[in-house]
Parts: sequence; structure tokens; C-alpha cells
Amino acid sequence: MDKLHSLYYILDLTGAFVFAISGATAAKQRGLDIFGICAIAFTVACGGGIIRDLCIGAIPPAGLTNWRYLVTALLATIITLSMFSLVRKLARPVLVFDAIGLALFAVTGAEKTLAFGHNPLVAILLGTTTAVGGGVLRDILLNRVPVILQKEIYALAALIGSCIVVAGTYSQLPMEIVSIIGIAGAATLRLLALHFRWNLPSSKPEIISEE
Amino acid sequence: MDKLHSLYYILDLTGAFVFAISGATAAKQRGLDIFGICAIAFTVACGGGIIRDLCIGAIPPAGLTNWRYLVTALLATIITLSMFSLVRKLARPVLVFDAIGLALFAVTGAEKTLAFGHNPLVAILLGTTTAVGGGVLRDILLNRVPVILQKEIYALAALIGSCIVVAGTYSQLPMEIVSIIGIAGAATLRLLALHFRWNLPSSKPEIISEE
Amino acid sequence: MDKLHSLYYILDLTGAFVFAISGATAAKQRGLDIFGICAIAFTVACGGGIIRDLCIGAIPPAGLTNWRYLVTALLATIITLSMFSLVRKLARPVLVFDAIGLALFAVTGAEKTLAFGHNPLVAILLGTTTAVGGGVLRDILLNRVPVILQKEIYALAALIGSCIVVAGTYSQLPMEIVSIIGIAGAATLRLLALHFRWNLPSSKPEIISEE
Repeated sequence: MDKLHSLYYILDLTGAFVFAISGATAAKQRGLDIFGICAIAFTVACGGGIIRDLCIGAIPPAGLTNWRYLVTALLATIITLSMFSLVRKLARPVLVFDAIGLALFAVTGAEKTLAFGHNPLVAILLGTTTAVGGGVLRDILLNRVPVILQKEIYALAALIGSCIVVAGTYSQLPMEIVSIIGIAGAATLRLLALHFRWNLPSSKPEIISEE
Repeated sequence: MDKLHSLYYILDLTGAFVFAISGATAAKQRGLDIFGICAIAFTVACGGGIIRDLCIGAIPPAGLTNWRYLVTALLATIITLSMFSLVRKLARPVLVFDAIGLALFAVTGAEKTLAFGHNPLVAILLGTTTAVGGGVLRDILLNRVPVILQKEIYALAALIGSCIVVAGTYSQLPMEIVSIIGIAGAATLRLLALHFRWNLPSSKPEIISEE
Repeated sequence: MDKLHSLYYILDLTGAFVFAISGATAAKQRGLDIFGICAIAFTVACGGGIIRDLCIGAIPPAGLTNWRYLVTALLATIITLSMFSLVRKLARPVLVFDAIGLALFAVTGAEKTLAFGHNPLVAILLGTTTAVGGGVLRDILLNRVPVILQKEIYALAALIGSCIVVAGTYSQLPMEIVSIIGIAGAATLRLLALHFRWNLPSSKPEIISEE
């Protein structure tokens, strides 16, 4: 099982890396300075996990204690800035890794919550939060409505990944198998949604005077 | 006293329900998808309490562990979406329940903070936060300046409800009576402010170039 | 050393005071009502420290338990509102105190994190967060991209102050000397950056359609 755990760890950092690239790209497009770009990249990579850790009482949050996340985020920033045109060209493949990161964060987030002794509902809510929290914080900091609230099947994929983990604890299956099913299920849904441009129903925004 | 506690519980869920309706309505008007609408409804209903619980060390936050809040928020979303014109017609009566929810959240928030052994100042600040935090998070997510910071006597009513609770602990009155006075006081102030369109003083925004 | 601690305490409240003035000024310019202005002033003064305390498990956060911060924030609001033209004229000197507040918050934030037994990385990240968190929350609430992410050497000065504290724990120097070096270093960098208008490199924002 050690191999599996190494695999997890690599996937976890890969997810953080891809999330950080999405953050650095958005921050650069918004004209932030280098510090701002690094800060957003780190926030996207670790923000969801930090919120989860605060809610389950894992103090201090892993995103702050483990230097590998910070290094990963900085590396992603350097790559984004130095090879920006390449990163943009690779937007499509990046989305594939983003889907894997999303699925992985949802599953590991739900598992960590359960490991801290909390109930299934908390695990589902915080698994999803782990996966989408960083992106929501990115959009708040960049002063826009979080894109995951507006369109595309994104958070729903994370939610389903978390639900699979919780359902798995009631099954006879070993946890490793459950995790793999959860990651595969969530990533597949997200990739299908991307490929077929599935959206959840929404209504047109009303023209409202804000004040 | 059991009846009183049942009453509290019902009022608490009613408050969450009404808050969720306000969230779902605002999210729908902004054109979010179904997931986004549910997320905002849940955030308005539970966001303030979650911030409070993080600050007092009630881990994990009640809004995440108790499925009734989630179900209430989802129910409010379904009702808002399926009967949107009715909900808009009922905007006025909804404001009455919103005032009651506000008052109740402020009082129960202050009481929970005191029950965790924190000082009166923390109770007042977190009672108010419980009541207004969800609405502030809603406005942040919908990318606008929180309405409670701009006009109307809203947070002030919550503040006064929390102060009544704290003052009550120094009195001879039984806590149940104090709670009722607090809820009645805060709700009355809010309803009077609505009726007479009371606003706190503010100045015109300056025309400033943001960058 | 008692004198030094008194000095710290006075500087700490001075920092909070200056931060609160910046918050009240920005909130007034945005046209918020009196409650909103007080809330923003308090948030800028205490927000960074509250986030730090949540992350290190100092529950409830000092900003909520110590009435002096609230009184300081309210006093700053009263002064800002009653002498607004004076406050604006003093914008330049206020920036000097802001630099000192920034440096002090970074150093005391890093020290508190270390005192709670956390590792150097957490101390650096949370020292910086203590110093800049309030300003970031102010900008989020006022619905704009946090200014510290966009330009000027501000967070970088806080980061360096925190790094000096951490480096100092590996040195033979007494902690008091380290603190003074950290505060002086961070404040000097910030003041030099202000004077010479140093900025970190950034790129032009792209014209992107948000939706």
C-alpha cells in the first residue's frame, strides 16, 4: 500500500500544481504584481484545504505547515510567468489535470474529515469545499462572482466524489478501492461535462439596479 | 421549559429558512446555476453561525453537522425556484420573518458564545456576526458591497439583541425571559426601521478612480 | 523588559489605530453608513490577527476578546469622520504610521505563531497574514481587488519582517533585539518603497470578457 500512498501524494501535489497554474494565469490576466500572482496561486492550491482544516480542527492547516505546497505554488507561478504563451496553449490539457486535482481534493478532503471523527454530512460538505474552496477564494480576490456558482458541472463532480467516499465507508470495500472509485467517478463526470459542455440549468440574470 | 426549547428550535429553522430564501432569490436574480443557488442559500442560512463556531472553538460548526440546516436551505431553494413570482410577491411578509430570524440568530449566537465561556464582548461581537454574517458572505460571493454596511438599521438591531442577552446575565431575570426580551427588542427595532425607512447617517460616495 | 513590553503594547494599538483610520477613510469614501464605517475600521484593525488566531488555535481571537482594539477602532472612526479633511491632509504622515503598524503586526504575528509552537513556515505565512489580512478583508468588503496584490511593496515588507523573526530564533540574539531588527527592517523597506515609488513587476491586465 506504500506505493499507493506515494501515488496519492504525487497526485495531491499535481492537483495543487495545476490549481496554482489556474490561479497564476487568472492573476496575471488581471494585472496583479508578482507578489499578488504568487499569493493567488498559493490561495487556489491551498485555500480549500485550509478552510477544511479550520472546520475540522486540524490546526494549523496542512497548507501552511507543509512547505511542499508553497514550493509547488511558487514553481507553478514561475512556469506560468516564464512560459505564459505555452501555458495558454496547453489550457486544454491543463483542464484534464484540473479535473483530476478536483476529484482528488474532494476524495482526500472527505477522507480527512472522516479520519477526524466527523459525521458523513460534514465529510461531504468539506470534501466539496476542499476541492472548490481555492477557486472560490481566487474569484473573490479577483473581484468576480465565483465561476463555479455560475455554470459548468464542477462542484457537482466534487460533491459526487465526496459522496462516493462516504458511501464507501458503509460498504465492504477496502478504503483504497473506494478512493479510486471516488476519484475516477468525479474526474470522469467533470471531463464528460467539459467535453459535452454540460451545464446545470440556470436563469438569465435580471437587470437589477444594485443600489 | 421543553416547550420553549422546541419553540426556539422551530424559530431557528424558520430563521434559516427565510435567510435561505433571501439567498436563493438574490442568486437566481444574478443568473447563477442550480448548484450556485443552493450554495448561496445554504451560505446565507449557516454562514454566520459557521464563522461564530470557528471563533468560539465549536468544531465542527453546527451548520455543517446538523442535516436539518442543509435540508432547510434546499427546501427554501426549491420553493424559491418553483414559486418565484409568489416569493417575490411575498417579499414584504418575508421581511418580517427575516427580522425575526435576525433577532433570533443574534440572541442564540450571543448565548452560545457565553455558554462556551467567553467574555461579554466576544458574545456581543459574535452574536451580531451570527445574525449578519450569512448576508455579508452572500454579498461577497455575488460581488457587491454588503448591503448591511451601506444602509438600513439591520446589523444595529442584531447588536442590540446581543447586548440585551449580555446585560441579562448581570440581571436577576431567568435566561428564558432575557432571550425573549432580546428577540423581541431586536425584531421590533428592525421592523420599525423597515416601516419608517430609518437609515443610519452616511455620506455620498466619492467618485474615486479605483486604480 | 517591562518598559519594552509597554512600548510594544502602545505600538500595537497605534498600528491598530492607523489601520482603522485607513479602513474608516475608505469606507466613508464608498458611502457606507456609520455602522458600515465602524465595521470596516474594526475589520482592518483586527482582521489579520483574527485569521492568524483561527489558524494557530488561539480561540477566541484576541481581536474579539480585548476591548481595547474595539475602542481603538471606534475612536479612529470618530476622528476620521469628525476631522475628515484633516485626516486627508495628513494622508502622508498616516502612511508612516501605517508602515510601522505593518512592520509591528508582521513581527508580533510571527512571534505569536512561534509561541504557539508552530513551525517557521507557518510563522512567516501567518506573520504576513497578520499584517496584510485586515487590508485584504477591507478591499473584499468594499468590492475591489485587494490593492496589496496589485502594486507597491507592502506585503513583501511584512514578509521580510516575519522572516527576520524566524531567522532570529536560530541566532544567539535575545528575542527583543530580533523584534526590533524585524520591525525596523520591515518599516524601512516599506518607507523606502513609498518614497521611491518602488513597485514589483506586473503586467498589464488583459481585456477579458468576464463571463
